[in-house]
Parts: sequence; C-alpha cells; structure tokens
Amino acid sequence: MSLEAGAYAGARVLVTGGLGFIGSNLTIELVRLGAHVTVMDCLVPVHGGNRFNVAPVEERIDVRVENLRDAFAAAARVEGQDFVFHLAGQVSHGDSMRDPQLDLDVNCRATINLVEACRHRNPGARIVYTSTRQVYGIARELPVTESHPTVPIDVNGINKLAAEYYHLLYHRTYGLRSAVLRLTNTYGPRQQVRNDRQSFIGIMIRQALRGDTLQVFGSGKQLRDFNYVDDVVQALLLAGASDDCMGGVFNLGAPEHHSLLDFVEALNALCPLRHEQVPFPDDRKIIDIGDYYGDYSAFAGATGWQPEVGLAEGLARTLESYRAHPEVYWR
Amino acid sequence: MSLEAGAYAGARVLVTGGLGFIGSNLTIELVRLGAHVTVMDCLVPVHGGNRFNVAPVEERIDVRVENLRDAFAAAARVEGQDFVFHLAGQVSHGDSMRDPQLDLDVNCRATINLVEACRHRNPGARIVYTSTRQVYGIARELPVTESHPTVPIDVNGINKLAAEYYHLLYHRTYGLRSAVLRLTNTYGPRQQVRNDRQSFIGIMIRQALRGDTLQVFGSGKQLRDFNYVDDVVQALLLAGASDDCMGGVFNLGAPEHHSLLDFVEALNALCPLRHEQVPFPDDRKIIDIGDYYGDYSAFAGATGWQPEVGLAEGLARTLESYRAHPEVYWR
Repeated sequence: MSLEAGAYAGARVLVTGGLGFIGSNLTIELVRLGAHVTVMDCLVPVHGGNRFNVAPVEERIDVRVENLRDAFAAAARVEGQDFVFHLAGQVSHGDSMRDPQLDLDVNCRATINLVEACRHRNPGARIVYTSTRQVYGIARELPVTESHPTVPIDVNGINKLAAEYYHLLYHRTYGLRSAVLRLTNTYGPRQQVRNDRQSFIGIMIRQALRGDTLQVFGSGKQLRDFNYVDDVVQALLLAGASDDCMGGVFNLGAPEHHSLLDFVEALNALCPLRHEQVPFPDDRKIIDIGDYYGDYSAFAGATGWQPEVGLAEGLARTLESYRAHPEVYWR
Repeated sequence: MSLEAGAYAGARVLVTGGLGFIGSNLTIELVRLGAHVTVMDCLVPVHGGNRFNVAPVEERIDVRVENLRDAFAAAARVEGQDFVFHLAGQVSHGDSMRDPQLDLDVNCRATINLVEACRHRNPGARIVYTSTRQVYGIARELPVTESHPTVPIDVNGINKLAAEYYHLLYHRTYGLRSAVLRLTNTYGPRQQVRNDRQSFIGIMIRQALRGDTLQVFGSGKQLRDFNYVDDVVQALLLAGASDDCMGGVFNLGAPEHHSLLDFVEALNALCPLRHEQVPFPDDRKIIDIGDYYGDYSAFAGATGWQPEVGLAEGLARTLESYRAHPEVYWR
C-alpha cells in the first residue's frame, strides 16, 4: 500500500507522545493527509511535549492528556483506531541513569499496556513503534545493521529494547501488526531544546541561538547520521502502511555521515557561533558510543524510503522555525 | 579463588528468592560452607517458595519475608553483604503471558532495586544473577552459545534479558561485580511441583508420584539438557568466587542431551507410570522452542565447573526427596 494510494485519508490514527517533537510533526502531516488523529500525551514537564507543537492543527485533532501507564486509558484510546504510532517515551539517556525506575515505567510498563490494549481491544490495528539506535551500544562494525549485537550502554537502551521485544512478541504470538523503527539522530522544528536532557543537537541549537559558546566533547570527530524530522515522519507513515514491515525491525539512517565538528560548522554557517572543545564530562563519557551510522537498506528496500533533506537544508529550516518562536522554545 | 580456599567460610551472603527451589538448595550449601546467610523472599503463593525448603538450616539463617520490589527493603538487605545471589523472580512462562506487568515488576523493577542498592550501599559485593536459556528463544544452531541471537518467545524471556542487561550495565558503568548465568532445565529436591506453572519436569514428577497419566506434548523427541540442582548450586558458588566471571554471561548445560521421552523413560524406571502423547495445546505451542541444548564451555573454562550428576542418578535423588515429604510438596 503506498501513501499515494491514500492509506491515511479518512483513517483513524492514535499518536502516543503526539505533543512531543516527532509526534507533533507526524500529527500535523497526518492531518494534512486527511486522517482523524487522536493525540495521547501526558505532558511530562521536562520531556518536551507542549501544546504549541500542534497549534497548526489543534482544531482538527483530539488531544487527550492521559498517561499510557494507565492501562484503562490505553485501552480506551486504542479502541477503534486503524493505526497506532507509539512515540511516547522517556528518551533522555542521562535521566534513565538517574531514575531507572521511571524509565522502566514510561518505556516498558506503558508499552505493555499499549500492546495488551491492542491485543484485547483492537487486534487489527497497525502499530509502529519508534525505538532507537541506542539499543546497539558501541558499534563493532559500521554501518550498523539490524543484526548487530544489542549491548545497550544505558538504562534507556535496555528498556527501549525490551519495548521492541514486546511488539515483536505480540506480533508472533497474537498476530498484532507491529513494526519497529530504530531512529538515529533526529532534528528539526518542535524539538525540545530548552533543557539538556535530550540530544546534543537540541543543546547546540539553543546555545547557538542564544549566543552561548558551544561545547564539543572530545575530538569532535565522532561520526553520526542525521535525519531531518520530515524524513522520519515519512518513514513512520511508510512503515505503518507497509505489510512488509509488520513484525520487522528497521534502522533509519542517512546517506551522508557527519562529524560533530561538521555539525557545528553547518550550524555556524546559519548562525555564527563560538565553540570550544572540552574533555568529556564523566557522566557523558560513560554513555559515549564513538562513531555511529546505521545501514538503512532493509527499510529502503521494504518501503522505498530515502531521506530527502540534507543537513544544511534541514538545519536552515530548523533555525527558521526556532527563530519564529523564541519564547516558546528557547529564550 | 577456589571454593577449596574457603571463599564462603565466614562470608555474609544474601540469597534473594532463598525460600524457592534453587535458592533454598543454595542456602543449605552455603550454611554447610560456613557462610552467614540472609534469605530474602516474599513468598508469592504460587511461585514455589516455602519455609520448609530451608528447614534443615532454619536455626542458622536470617529469613526476611520482604519484597525486593520495595527499594528500601532491597537497600537494607544488601548492605554489608559480601555476596548477593539474586534468584528471586517470576519464572513461569505462562504466567508472564497472562500477567506481563507482574512479570515486569518481579523481574525488572526488583532487579533495578537490587543493582541500585548495590551501587549506593555496597558497591564491592559480588553478585550472581540467575537468568534463563529462555532469552534465546528458538535455537538457530545447536549447541547454543552465549553469542546466539536473543529472540525471546515470551514476556518472561524479555524481562529476564532486560534484568541481565541491568547487571552488565552496572558492571561496566559503576564497576559492580556481577555475573550472569543462563540456566537450563534444572530439577531436584525442593522444586515446586504442586501446580503447573513452572517446568514440565515438576509437572511430570507430580503426575508420576500421584499415579496420574503423564502427557507428552508433540513428538516427545525434543532434546533438552538437564542440570541437577546440586550442580547448579556449585555453578553459582563458583561464579560468585571467580574474578573471571564478573561482567560476563555464561550458559550452564550438560554433556548429555535427552529427549522428553527419554526423560519419561528415566522417570518410569524409578516410578512406574503411564504416559500418553497428545498434540501441543495452543498455549504451550506458542512458547515451544523445539530442541535446545547449550554450550557451557565458556563457563567450564572460566571456573572448571562440570555437572557431575547424570539424569538417572539425579532423578533417583529427587524422587527419594519427594517421597519423604508428600504432604509438603505434592499430595
């Protein structure tokens, strides 16, 4: 089923974490495609979800500020949906080390509620789960394929991996139609950049916008693959509409890889900045993974997906967005 | 450090799940070696823990009926111990599918409490965690080594795998001295055989003792490796005393592999019985893994461990024990 065929026009779609970064971008695109979207988000204060993220479509969606850790709420929201995009989660690696039980609740308990709700109330729904490259830990060979060993180096990676397994188990055991995408560094409008809990990308964008000096940890030569959020949204939509993806685990990724210093340079071209290189702080060093870039050929083969927005273009759109709304996001 | 050198004489040792099958056998052996043992067990009614299991040593150990899901209890018990054997857990595959949240609590939440307690209160303790071959799922090649892909086929396998990862992560990140053993089919005195929640071994032993007809699912030709509980206890003791095991994951296993029909035959030789072969019930079929036997050469190399009790001898000891206490275990 292709998106051109209108998989989402008129469809009922649940987006968990739909007030967050990727969830809100997905929600806006779904509305554009003609879907009836319910957003479920519990607005954990520091996680980055906020109502402004869905302002462009707020009159046309159903926003439920509810907690997926509540099994009854999960069941009520899942019922009757054609698609479920499960994006709600704790994504801060540092927070997962500071409060592993909260991470377990948000990533595992909530996910069990979701798949149990689908099993009992809506076994025909198509489910897409957003996991993370963090499940691999330190890359033993590059690019990293989906069969690379999973040796998570933080609690978040462990719990996200368990959440993947629940989806796959319920697919094999009960026939749920679920697909898992392992996202890499995603950036773009509506990302939480106000605190340092999440990606280095958000931290650096805020520092650049505020005129603060950027800190690059270590050599700055660590390679990464970056996906602009619109490309990730397309990947999610393709996964949900593809029979070939159900029961599978797929990396996202990008054709080009950039060092952290490349990233700083690209940012500097759009927003002149100062930066300094400093040694890794201890709490970052223990979760540093060196170079990482993923092999996304399996997903490209299954769906035809290719990322279309390069780093310079994506960063330009991102900065434009943040400059338009300083009070909401970063000032 | 060898056991001969007296690693456990005078040592302070915590055994979580110490009123259960393997935990109580371990506790009794530790007392024999001169250790000061604290048992922590919350006696979940159907899980098989019972005070009679430690009757031979009850005057010489400290039994705490407390729940490891309580972080304060975990911290209090861990403090001051030289060794922590973490055996408490939910081990019923069927129960994990019927109540995945309880399985998550007992296997993941409790384990996070344990490793957090060690990290903050007792970072020098030596920790041994009992995991399960169930983390592998269906064997792609035999014998299964520790690098075999982990594709759990039930919620229990997913959560036990996450619990392994917490131990290894806290080893790498905080220097905790923890080792993980993946146990295969363990049998022997003090196993819960009264209900059908756990291993087929317990079910068949009860049926044989009661004169019920044994049911063998499928062809009965599925191969398994069996460990008598005394051999598993020796493995746990060796792992705890070995620097080479810290931070590692090791299979247990046995030099001989037996089919389920072999097992029935061995049981029949000791306790004449009737059996019938029936198709797999649906709820068993979806968690059936076909043939399984593990490669335990890594653990043998690290510690010199070799299982010493064969199936006929182990079953003879087991039946003798159950026949001596019918009211406690199976009548």
